[in-house]
Amino acid sequence: MPHPDSPYLAIPGQPFTLSDRATTTDIFESRSAAKAAIRQTGEAIAELAQVLYANAGERNAPKVLIVLQGMDTSGKDSTTKAMFRQTPPLNVRVQPFKAPTKPELARDYLWRVHDVVPKKGEIVIFNRSHYEDVLVVKVREFADAETVENRYGQINDFERLLVEEGSLILKFMLNISRETQAERLRARLERPDKRWKFNPGDLDDRALWPDFMDAYETMVRRTSTPHAPWYVIPSDDKKTRSAIIADIVRQALDALDLHYPDPGYRPGNYDI
Amino acid sequence: MPHPDSPYLAIPGQPFTLSDRATTTDIFESRSAAKAAIRQTGEAIAELAQVLYANAGERNAPKVLIVLQGMDTSGKDSTTKAMFRQTPPLNVRVQPFKAPTKPELARDYLWRVHDVVPKKGEIVIFNRSHYEDVLVVKVREFADAETVENRYGQINDFERLLVEEGSLILKFMLNISRETQAERLRARLERPDKRWKFNPGDLDDRALWPDFMDAYETMVRRTSTPHAPWYVIPSDDKKTRSAIIADIVRQALDALDLHYPDPGYRPGNYDI
Repeated sequence: MPHPDSPYLAIPGQPFTLSDRATTTDIFESRSAAKAAIRQTGEAIAELAQVLYANAGERNAPKVLIVLQGMDTSGKDSTTKAMFRQTPPLNVRVQPFKAPTKPELARDYLWRVHDVVPKKGEIVIFNRSHYEDVLVVKVREFADAETVENRYGQINDFERLLVEEGSLILKFMLNISRETQAERLRARLERPDKRWKFNPGDLDDRALWPDFMDAYETMVRRTSTPHAPWYVIPSDDKKTRSAIIADIVRQALDALDLHYPDPGYRPGNYDI
Repeated sequence: MPHPDSPYLAIPGQPFTLSDRATTTDIFESRSAAKAAIRQTGEAIAELAQVLYANAGERNAPKVLIVLQGMDTSGKDSTTKAMFRQTPPLNVRVQPFKAPTKPELARDYLWRVHDVVPKKGEIVIFNRSHYEDVLVVKVREFADAETVENRYGQINDFERLLVEEGSLILKFMLNISRETQAERLRARLERPDKRWKFNPGDLDDRALWPDFMDAYETMVRRTSTPHAPWYVIPSDDKKTRSAIIADIVRQALDALDLHYPDPGYRPGNYDI
């Protein structure tokens, strides 16, 4: 299991109560300290991503899947930007999940997910994910209770398949308070360069905040597994959130202990 | 037509001779001047990409397709890295094209290409492309001459469809000398962190250099169109090459004249 000592880990098999988890933390002394941490971690991630890319053709090259889940305005886009600011797009792919299309609804809910999992040497960031199928689907009753109940086990099985076949899975819940969401929604309306992000429909989800928190809590309880545990990240402060997540990603990439492959070719063997 | 005054443009309808095109240029006084230009242009591209991303949901949001073609070691990966170093991966996707798979070979050669074209608000970089179907396929006679001959028109038609349906297409041939390729292949063998990029098979293509140059020349002559012209970039110097390409991309994105959408929502209209 990655990072057994992380204070943000939802330890598999242990009780989990979302309200016990903070939405704020003071691990950084200042905003500039958090910014400096992100910058430094971002550089390290860029280097690790480059070695991962070099390994894409190797037999056992890992695939990396990062899942970002959180309420509207929790910072899924911003975290992606902050974490991969210095990493070129060669082997990094962002996969957003919107409401399913008709052809997607005509299959099981993991069909569209399986289609876009990372390949060897690739880092894929899920902005929302198959977890929406036990979150919004549950809260809004788009599926019946038994169907949703079955999904926790199905998701665990699916993720175990991916891990056993060579994926590293890192799952983050971006945990914000209801007050922080209010501030950010208001900021979207006030700033002309943010207004395009505002969606009046988000207010409908906001009205169901307690139901969503219940659904998130159950999600973490039921799907934080040894092969793919959840990290619940205090996300009221943007820089702190990005710095924490980036650091967990950096550590996980570092633990892969990858090196540039040596295919055995040497200068003397070729007449160029 | 974008950039009608660019010295690198292969003007549609005009005679084109590849050997007339330089593989070097001295537009930068120094290596550091070229590096500074890339950095500055990269910042501008990052901002333009962000506005493009904000427009993804708009009715007429453009889609951006960048095609990079060139011999092995010409710098397709490096150009991508240099150009998008500061741009987060939210709406940038790199699409490499390798030898086609069996299911791909069972369809027409544009089938797999059509599947991965950019969507609204997205920038997609083709690392190699459908042009391999008139390059390596022609030189190695993987298809008969008449089939290849038909493809120039088919490609022009396909690209016109994309452009008429809202894509911007920028095509770059990374033009290196045979001597530069030799140096770079040798460097790959000598540097442990580059050795994974070496492929003895590349030497087979290298042995057919004149045939490839003929195929590139014909490609540019036949497919530099008003809707999707070719730029032939002096690429013996890495920094200069990246700076020139990045600048053409920046200008093209800038010419889209995009702004943050205003959906009309205002703070006073919502109780948050």
